[in-house]
Amino acid sequence: MAERRFLNDLFGRMVSARRRLDKGVGRNASAIDLFDRLLGDAGEASGLMTAMLAMDRFDAADAKGKRQIFRDMAMRYGVDTDKLDAAIANWTSGDDSAARRIHFAAEPKSQELIRRLNRVPGATARLVAMRAQLLDAARDNPDLAGLDQDFQHLFTSWFNRGFLEIRQIDWSTPAAILEKIIAYEAVHEITGWDDLRQRVADPDRRLFAFFHPAMPSDPLIFVEVALTTAIPGAIAPIIATARDYVDPDEASVAVFYSISNCQRGLRGISFGNFLIKQVVSELQAELPRLKTFVTLSPVPGLRGWAASAPDDVLGDADRAAIASTTGPTPEHAAAIAARYLTKARRKQGTAFDSVAHFHLGNGAELYRVHASADLSANGMANAWGVMVNYLYDGDKIEANHQAYATEQKIVASARVRALATK
Amino acid sequence: MAERRFLNDLFGRMVSARRRLDKGVGRNASAIDLFDRLLGDAGEASGLMTAMLAMDRFDAADAKGKRQIFRDMAMRYGVDTDKLDAAIANWTSGDDSAARRIHFAAEPKSQELIRRLNRVPGATARLVAMRAQLLDAARDNPDLAGLDQDFQHLFTSWFNRGFLEIRQIDWSTPAAILEKIIAYEAVHEITGWDDLRQRVADPDRRLFAFFHPAMPSDPLIFVEVALTTAIPGAIAPIIATARDYVDPDEASVAVFYSISNCQRGLRGISFGNFLIKQVVSELQAELPRLKTFVTLSPVPGLRGWAASAPDDVLGDADRAAIASTTGPTPEHAAAIAARYLTKARRKQGTAFDSVAHFHLGNGAELYRVHASADLSANGMANAWGVMVNYLYDGDKIEANHQAYATEQKIVASARVRALATK
Amino acid sequence: MAERRFLNDLFGRMVSARRRLDKGVGRNASAIDLFDRLLGDAGEASGLMTAMLAMDRFDAADAKGKRQIFRDMAMRYGVDTDKLDAAIANWTSGDDSAARRIHFAAEPKSQELIRRLNRVPGATARLVAMRAQLLDAARDNPDLAGLDQDFQHLFTSWFNRGFLEIRQIDWSTPAAILEKIIAYEAVHEITGWDDLRQRVADPDRRLFAFFHPAMPSDPLIFVEVALTTAIPGAIAPIIATARDYVDPDEASVAVFYSISNCQRGLRGISFGNFLIKQVVSELQAELPRLKTFVTLSPVPGLRGWAASAPDDVLGDADRAAIASTTGPTPEHAAAIAARYLTKARRKQGTAFDSVAHFHLGNGAELYRVHASADLSANGMANAWGVMVNYLYDGDKIEANHQAYATEQKIVASARVRALATK
Amino acid sequence: MAERRFLNDLFGRMVSARRRLDKGVGRNASAIDLFDRLLGDAGEASGLMTAMLAMDRFDAADAKGKRQIFRDMAMRYGVDTDKLDAAIANWTSGDDSAARRIHFAAEPKSQELIRRLNRVPGATARLVAMRAQLLDAARDNPDLAGLDQDFQHLFTSWFNRGFLEIRQIDWSTPAAILEKIIAYEAVHEITGWDDLRQRVADPDRRLFAFFHPAMPSDPLIFVEVALTTAIPGAIAPIIATARDYVDPDEASVAVFYSISNCQRGLRGISFGNFLIKQVVSELQAELPRLKTFVTLSPVPGLRGWAASAPDDVLGDADRAAIASTTGPTPEHAAAIAARYLTKARRKQGTAFDSVAHFHLGNGAELYRVHASADLSANGMANAWGVMVNYLYDGDKIEANHQAYATEQKIVASARVRALATK
Repeated sequence: MAERRFLNDLFGRMVSARRRLDKGVGRNASAIDLFDRLLGDAGEASGLMTAMLAMDRFDAADAKGKRQIFRDMAMRYGVDTDKLDAAIANWTSGDDSAARRIHFAAEPKSQELIRRLNRVPGATARLVAMRAQLLDAARDNPDLAGLDQDFQHLFTSWFNRGFLEIRQIDWSTPAAILEKIIAYEAVHEITGWDDLRQRVADPDRRLFAFFHPAMPSDPLIFVEVALTTAIPGAIAPIIATARDYVDPDEASVAVFYSISNCQRGLRGISFGNFLIKQVVSELQAELPRLKTFVTLSPVPGLRGWAASAPDDVLGDADRAAIASTTGPTPEHAAAIAARYLTKARRKQGTAFDSVAHFHLGNGAELYRVHASADLSANGMANAWGVMVNYLYDGDKIEANHQAYATEQKIVASARVRALATK
Repeated sequence: MAERRFLNDLFGRMVSARRRLDKGVGRNASAIDLFDRLLGDAGEASGLMTAMLAMDRFDAADAKGKRQIFRDMAMRYGVDTDKLDAAIANWTSGDDSAARRIHFAAEPKSQELIRRLNRVPGATARLVAMRAQLLDAARDNPDLAGLDQDFQHLFTSWFNRGFLEIRQIDWSTPAAILEKIIAYEAVHEITGWDDLRQRVADPDRRLFAFFHPAMPSDPLIFVEVALTTAIPGAIAPIIATARDYVDPDEASVAVFYSISNCQRGLRGISFGNFLIKQVVSELQAELPRLKTFVTLSPVPGLRGWAASAPDDVLGDADRAAIASTTGPTPEHAAAIAARYLTKARRKQGTAFDSVAHFHLGNGAELYRVHASADLSANGMANAWGVMVNYLYDGDKIEANHQAYATEQKIVASARVRALATK
Repeated sequence: MAERRFLNDLFGRMVSARRRLDKGVGRNASAIDLFDRLLGDAGEASGLMTAMLAMDRFDAADAKGKRQIFRDMAMRYGVDTDKLDAAIANWTSGDDSAARRIHFAAEPKSQELIRRLNRVPGATARLVAMRAQLLDAARDNPDLAGLDQDFQHLFTSWFNRGFLEIRQIDWSTPAAILEKIIAYEAVHEITGWDDLRQRVADPDRRLFAFFHPAMPSDPLIFVEVALTTAIPGAIAPIIATARDYVDPDEASVAVFYSISNCQRGLRGISFGNFLIKQVVSELQAELPRLKTFVTLSPVPGLRGWAASAPDDVLGDADRAAIASTTGPTPEHAAAIAARYLTKARRKQGTAFDSVAHFHLGNGAELYRVHASADLSANGMANAWGVMVNYLYDGDKIEANHQAYATEQKIVASARVRALATK
Repeated sequence: MAERRFLNDLFGRMVSARRRLDKGVGRNASAIDLFDRLLGDAGEASGLMTAMLAMDRFDAADAKGKRQIFRDMAMRYGVDTDKLDAAIANWTSGDDSAARRIHFAAEPKSQELIRRLNRVPGATARLVAMRAQLLDAARDNPDLAGLDQDFQHLFTSWFNRGFLEIRQIDWSTPAAILEKIIAYEAVHEITGWDDLRQRVADPDRRLFAFFHPAMPSDPLIFVEVALTTAIPGAIAPIIATARDYVDPDEASVAVFYSISNCQRGLRGISFGNFLIKQVVSELQAELPRLKTFVTLSPVPGLRGWAASAPDDVLGDADRAAIASTTGPTPEHAAAIAARYLTKARRKQGTAFDSVAHFHLGNGAELYRVHASADLSANGMANAWGVMVNYLYDGDKIEANHQAYATEQKIVASARVRALATK
């Protein structure tokens, strides 16, 4: 309330300042002109207004215009060469004060620009959206990588875990947030308000999200949870519209069946690990009978990887089945998936599958591989319908994580290991 | 609520992880051991717990122990010399990518340490308190200046204006916050709850504060406002216990009679400018009849400066009066103050008086100088009882600020200029 | 939160009391047994639990069982004949103390029963639902009228205007409340969440509701408002899905285009008058440019009344048009409606049309009659598509209300009066 | 917020209505004139304003003027004799419909008046204050008893348990509420904010209160709780300023050491029973280790009763000690208290001591009698320093209550019974 009034009234009142600004650089000022002005003025007398106008200009530009603005930003707001030269000239290796002076001398001006833009209430969400567009623009323009680094660096600091708040999303949540949940669900589409209602308001369903205080209506990431009496082996029964409820007090298993990052502009800033662990804790506090915490996860990289059929992981029978017009049988697909998940690696030695990499890095165990678990078009196209449970066992998380972090050891259950050698 | 449970339950549950930690580095681990561990582990499986324990260790240390911890931090978590050497070796002046690589290579490890400590809910306030103690320790230890720079750098980013929220403090405010207002008032002491009550709950009084979302019960800065029918020339009638109220709808003047920074650990991060301007806007929205926004401010540097009697500003009569046992007459003191405020400069050319520098930098005008305005011990000791009004005139703020920022021009009313030459 | 825990924990703990209750009257106890017990015990040691179980029993009964419970209640919890006889015996006409004694002696026991049932948190909504079913049951059982009077008497006291709170319903409102708005809209159906969104979240639309603190998620009545630049003559443009917005700051007219009572169980307790007047006030505070406050209302009784073609209001041409297979032309229908609204009366002399009676009683003026204003099936079936504006003019409300209340004078604009005689 | 604006703006706007009201009955209208007007008008066009002005007039009157207003109200707004005569004339004993008609015919007009006054937001608190003054006035004017009955009847309905909300009062509670706790504490005076702080914010102290939604800043009743490791035998250690804390998780006993009714105007409407039982439940939910719930209560009636030395309860030695100049020894006083509490009765057979009657009626057991437990002036003057524990044992509450309610049986522990015969 106060914040909104601030924008309206403060600027409403500073009439002559605005008029002058509009007459001077204002009305015909480009976003870059306004950025210049914002950086140029050490004081902040009209800084908030300049920042607001600058972002208005940016938002009003079309895709091409925005790309140009990014290019200009990358050019103009890089590192101050003279200052850096001077700092390096005064430096002897090992002198920590001198090194720090270099650090600050080498700070790109774009970092200060982004910080100043953020001063206006509501700016954080706009800057996150700006970076989403920067990521698009940077795809075919490597010169923008530096600018993107600056955004990422600041966002990592601003979206520090200590600043986030967890909220349970349910049927008492404002519609303005719920409609974003519908829009952001990236794994198992929410088909509308009725579908949403059962995911947040059924007695055996939960949905938790992280928020940042400066973006109170915009979830950053959310996880959907089903309370069950057994570890599930397929997604359809969980998102079915007609189903019997489990009494939450009777449930022994909590299933994380969908995790969605909401803000493309926060790519590279990871919240999932923290969210899962806090949700485990929230659920244990509410329902002490819960004993098992597992995911029901897709295997997004399976078929893409299998197409190139690496020699060392798959056998001839595997390759033949993959090449056949009908593809492998469901059971065979599960065995191939087990081999893939336990053995396929990236150059750095980490798990090839991105979802596996995420959960193993968090300290989870590769626990079950299920055939015919996701018969949707996506599930078939990516992984012949295979899905996986990763197990979060509080007593082993630390050791699992260490094993994976230091030796890239993939901790898998005996059953999965057996399946991988079948 | 959720956050507190998080600490209790998540850590309560991760029993074996904690046991292992306690057995290993844990129980006998020093703060520095735990800092090492926190920085060493790329993953975060037990990171929150490590961070929490590390801060517990720090808080449990005595002043001497803390000083030692700071020294160790400064030594161990400086810039990585090898990385920096390598980055500089690969650098040609003017190559922006290479410069950015230097920037990130030269980032002191203490910055990442502080970011990781901040991940635990509630950590921000503890880090701010930690820096307050660092400032004490750094006073006689210049080697800690670099570490302090890192704290200040991160706090500047985290306490960005866009993240702050303004709140009006009144009699519906929780007692836990009100007692902090009593404790933090730095200018005109609040003598107890009755005194506080009139400053926040009288119909013609207002108190506004900035808060950071991660420190919801801890004000960062606050300003006290009196609504009056004329620009006041003394503080006593404003903080008197028995006085007639002004109907707020009849008031034409808002007087900022006290501004207090609350967090010593946030020294160097300035909020006052933003706060004053937003309060102007809040008050205008509530009470459209308000026409004049002024301060009633002390002149803290006057007598200290006058003691060294600079030739170019004061005349012989001034010096004689200052040197006399009785000091200057009130009227004479006001004239000396006017000379001081309009002419006394620091080396950089800015106003010598810190309060003057603050308001002039914000775009205010030096508007009135009052004799016998603050007869308290403090007021007499610092400024022979002189106080000053700085005027915030929305139409002139921008120009005043520019004049002061670019040419160090001190904008003063004709009356003050006349007084200065008397 | 506290309240929910209360039910769970208090009763959870009072194990032996509950066991005893279950063994004694409890498990096999009917609703009536439990009502008896609740009334019988002067103290309240187990009263909350008894009340809760009694309502559970009632809710678990089917429609027939509920009817029987109501009949039993009417029989058992009437007036105490002996007490009343005694009070009357001790009475002399004009003795006010004795009269009061009669009043309290004649209080039906069902009133105290309803008050005791209400002690359990959450009971108020259940009692309102109970009365909705009582109204159904009373339709063919006049013996239940007395019991219904008791409900209505208590509800009138409990739902006193002073206890209600107004809330603006918008897109930040919890979904649990929004879905009730969809369900309760009685005049112009809301077809789903998209339709709802525009009615509450479009910049030129508002929706306000009254709530009772004991039913915080259940609106009692709500009104939908369109902000426009002219008094509208048809409903379709207002509820159209694709339309241009009016800038609220440019709007001069607020149109109350739908008023819905939500709780059947509160029949006879009227909130509409208070709601409209408070909404006028809320809108004026938000948007000082609004000058005109009108309804766009249906004429629900027109064709039903016209079918019996009363001699004194309609002429031969009217009757012929009504009787023709095509019905009257739109313009003719409007003229008939004007005659109906200005002249058709109930026996008591009040306006025949229920909607007209409501607004005239509130002090509104019959301002415009529009042909072809509601072409929906309902609008045609009830009123040949005619709709009406009632004007709420703050300066005339009091006089209009007095004229209608004391002399049944229907205040209509010159234009409507002219139309009525055409 | 909305409510406050309502009063200002709606009435601000209804300028001409107000002018007319002021010119007509308004400006010179007495409270009674306005009451008449409020009752006379069936509609409510200007009803809210009339109600507000009427209460303003009442509040502006002095004590004598208020007494006169009450007398006028009692005279004018009694039962309508003609209506009642007619209803009785149409009545045959046993006809329930006719009896109900009598009930409604015999309703004093003051009830409807009070309901109409309550329509204005904020009126409930003013009506409660009005009744407090009525109780004063009624002390020497028995003719006001009927009017008071009407207030009490409506308040009983409005302040139904189902409408109340419990809140824990702590250091995050608004100061505006806390200062009322200080003012309302009736048993063991709170000497200021520091004393309050320890009662609400010490880790082993709790304070709970009931509120009504229409009086959100005004507690109705509150109870202070100490968490201890043993049943206490004296008040001083509990309210001591310097004392060691008990870890709440180690506490086994919850002591209700002070219960204060806050609103004199709600005399006769009892909340204490409900509050104690809900607090028991809240504490059990928070601290499952609590096993024992007792009071530490005064014996307010002891010495007053002892002065008349009833033959059948006290012996000669008792009487002699009471009559002696030094009074009984502490131990003797405790024995006398035990006799008093177990045997002294009122005419109806209930316990003579009001505090005993309250707790026994709630189902508590008279558990311990302590000598020298309250050495304050009050404690000595009322009960020679004796205090008492009443035990709330969930398993026995129901039976104890029944025994007291039906047979006036005072359930006391063996120890107290033994003491009584010593």
